[in-house]
Amino acid sequence: MSDIGLYMQEIGRRARSAAVDAARAGTAAKNQALLTTVEALDANREDLMQANAEDLRLGSEKGLDAPLMDRLELTPKRIDGMIEGLRQVAALDDPVGEVSGLKFRPTGIQVGRMRVPLGVIGIIYESRPNVTCEAASLCLKAGNAAILRGGSEALHSNQAIATCIGMGLAEAGLDPHVIQVLDRPDREAVGRLITMPEYVDVIVPRGGKGLIERISRESRVPVIKHLDGNCHLYVDDRADLDKSITVAVNAKTQRYGTCCTLESLLVARPVAGEFLPELARILGESDVELRGCYETRDIVSEAVPATEEDWQAEYLAPILSIRIVGGLDEAITHINRYGSQHTDSIMTEDHGRAQRFLREVDSSSVMVNASTRFADGFEYGLGAEIGISTDKLHARGPVGLEGLTSQKFVVLGDGHIRQ
Amino acid sequence: MSDIGLYMQEIGRRARSAAVDAARAGTAAKNQALLTTVEALDANREDLMQANAEDLRLGSEKGLDAPLMDRLELTPKRIDGMIEGLRQVAALDDPVGEVSGLKFRPTGIQVGRMRVPLGVIGIIYESRPNVTCEAASLCLKAGNAAILRGGSEALHSNQAIATCIGMGLAEAGLDPHVIQVLDRPDREAVGRLITMPEYVDVIVPRGGKGLIERISRESRVPVIKHLDGNCHLYVDDRADLDKSITVAVNAKTQRYGTCCTLESLLVARPVAGEFLPELARILGESDVELRGCYETRDIVSEAVPATEEDWQAEYLAPILSIRIVGGLDEAITHINRYGSQHTDSIMTEDHGRAQRFLREVDSSSVMVNASTRFADGFEYGLGAEIGISTDKLHARGPVGLEGLTSQKFVVLGDGHIRQ
Repeated sequence: MSDIGLYMQEIGRRARSAAVDAARAGTAAKNQALLTTVEALDANREDLMQANAEDLRLGSEKGLDAPLMDRLELTPKRIDGMIEGLRQVAALDDPVGEVSGLKFRPTGIQVGRMRVPLGVIGIIYESRPNVTCEAASLCLKAGNAAILRGGSEALHSNQAIATCIGMGLAEAGLDPHVIQVLDRPDREAVGRLITMPEYVDVIVPRGGKGLIERISRESRVPVIKHLDGNCHLYVDDRADLDKSITVAVNAKTQRYGTCCTLESLLVARPVAGEFLPELARILGESDVELRGCYETRDIVSEAVPATEEDWQAEYLAPILSIRIVGGLDEAITHINRYGSQHTDSIMTEDHGRAQRFLREVDSSSVMVNASTRFADGFEYGLGAEIGISTDKLHARGPVGLEGLTSQKFVVLGDGHIRQ
Repeated sequence: MSDIGLYMQEIGRRARSAAVDAARAGTAAKNQALLTTVEALDANREDLMQANAEDLRLGSEKGLDAPLMDRLELTPKRIDGMIEGLRQVAALDDPVGEVSGLKFRPTGIQVGRMRVPLGVIGIIYESRPNVTCEAASLCLKAGNAAILRGGSEALHSNQAIATCIGMGLAEAGLDPHVIQVLDRPDREAVGRLITMPEYVDVIVPRGGKGLIERISRESRVPVIKHLDGNCHLYVDDRADLDKSITVAVNAKTQRYGTCCTLESLLVARPVAGEFLPELARILGESDVELRGCYETRDIVSEAVPATEEDWQAEYLAPILSIRIVGGLDEAITHINRYGSQHTDSIMTEDHGRAQRFLREVDSSSVMVNASTRFADGFEYGLGAEIGISTDKLHARGPVGLEGLTSQKFVVLGDGHIRQ
């Protein structure tokens, strides 16, 4: 076996063993580890900034582009953010061991479910070093061991953060291998990580669509993922148009680069003539490019023609595609055909139509009269999130602590036997 | 593309389209389909028996062994069983559309979860024709479309059952392709079914370990599975030994061939001398072969030596392996090392030890003072079960209607936007 193969085997073996310790760890110990990490990060700001400066220097030499360099940078404010995130995770209820639905059965046994950790979680991410902290804290609080594989350009920053996490684990008396941050930049490490089902229970990739597609295709371990967020807002002919303007503008312009940003607007034909000109005026002030269907362009002259690709696109940019539809049925059909099962919203004052939209749109988040930008773990009250899932099994939508756990059955008897 | 490739593509395409109909179907329509199928089965007993006679004739010609011929046979009693099963599924609450946890957030939006079907479920099973009915009814009630691939030796029986299910779907006005039973025996059909993620959302294999291992290895679609059931009972030194005898005998002898049958007994050293001779006497009456560790054989002279393979074995036969352990820690370590994460039970009157066992044994069902034979969807109150999962993601333990669904997020607002 290759050198990197042996390295990853050893990492896996240690994680599997540490997962037993993580699963048994009490809430107090896990919180102590998190809060000691906070202290360590705060006390070692100098070292963090120095390690990050080294990454930035190497990145600059390699000619990384500006957005990547920005994501890579650890500013004092971003360190504050990591610290605040850790405190929030420490403050969340411990999901592990929660027993629910314990009921007596006619045979006399009691049957319920206990929430338990998944085991070993592999996280693969790109250049942002603060993901190291976020992912580690969520995995630990949910009683899992984690193997973290950040982008090679953040190697020094990630190791400096790993040192602080290590101090937290040590202070709490936990196995130091509960959180392992890979310290070798080899690309092959990812290939190994996703093909060790004996050591890794689930993979969470965080990054661009290309990375996630490759991992999903090659992984022999279950993957919790979302590929893209082509989110829709449908403005029904029974919508309140003032609310609809407010929500559409917010969903499109509050932030352009997120996976729950609005990308495609559907408008019911009877209200298009009243709704679209006002919307176009406001979005024009933000220089949002409009791409419309034939009918849309009759109403909004500045809109350029939308192609088939536009209905499928996740722009992550100040661009909005607009289509006029006959009504709710056509809107639902369009969304289920072109959408990415991420987040879709309807504007309507009609109860029955709202109910149909909620039920029939097959997306991880479905909304009524609300901005798609709400699709987020914090906004949903999950605390932090490790990612958003557009898969159907296990977890859909924002994945928080609960999504990093599973439930087993518990049966309590007093010498009961099956007849 | 090969002929069978085109056939499976067409099946997949139809299932994906029918899944939309199944997901929207109301509870009344689904129940009507199930109860009309009951009537059709009852009215067509002659046809069912005739089709089955043809399968039995061909099976006999091919020289199928006696247990396989037995599983293949449709007796009047087994048809009664199918009918009773359908009635029970019709009587279960509809899981689809259930909204839970709808709570207001500080921003004013309400966030909750809605239970939704998984989509298209592929079921691969062996010779028992009644699985066709069971699987179809559960998938339908949970709002899914299903593609059923039974053993080729049951082809005629399965087609006769499929005809009755088709009558049910037609009577309820549902898409006839909500339930498709493959009518081509080609082995390649399975290979296609498990590699069409564009048409199939989850695969449930039911059968021997070989079949399940092959499917898990080759599938490009998530698989809900259990490989084997190497179930343990640990008799603690604080156990009530009378209860322990009763439970151990029931867990081993109530039925030998099930996945939740006891295969390995662990006994705490301080009580082994009192417990084991009595147990050996009773199991001896049922001709159960005992295979023990060195210490066990000192106490139970008729026990033969247990090897490393015995600790891993799922016998499905009147054989029991026995090991004497130092106490709870050693028992948990043994189970987590050799067990198959199926079902494991402790006999103890000590509350703290019971709690530790429940939490630290990493199996899909963990029990206190109860027979492992209770690990079953009916016994747990799930209604019927489509199988038992020893996986960690999505579903663990018996999988009923709920395991054939997922949850999406619903967000209700009144023009709310994100700040």
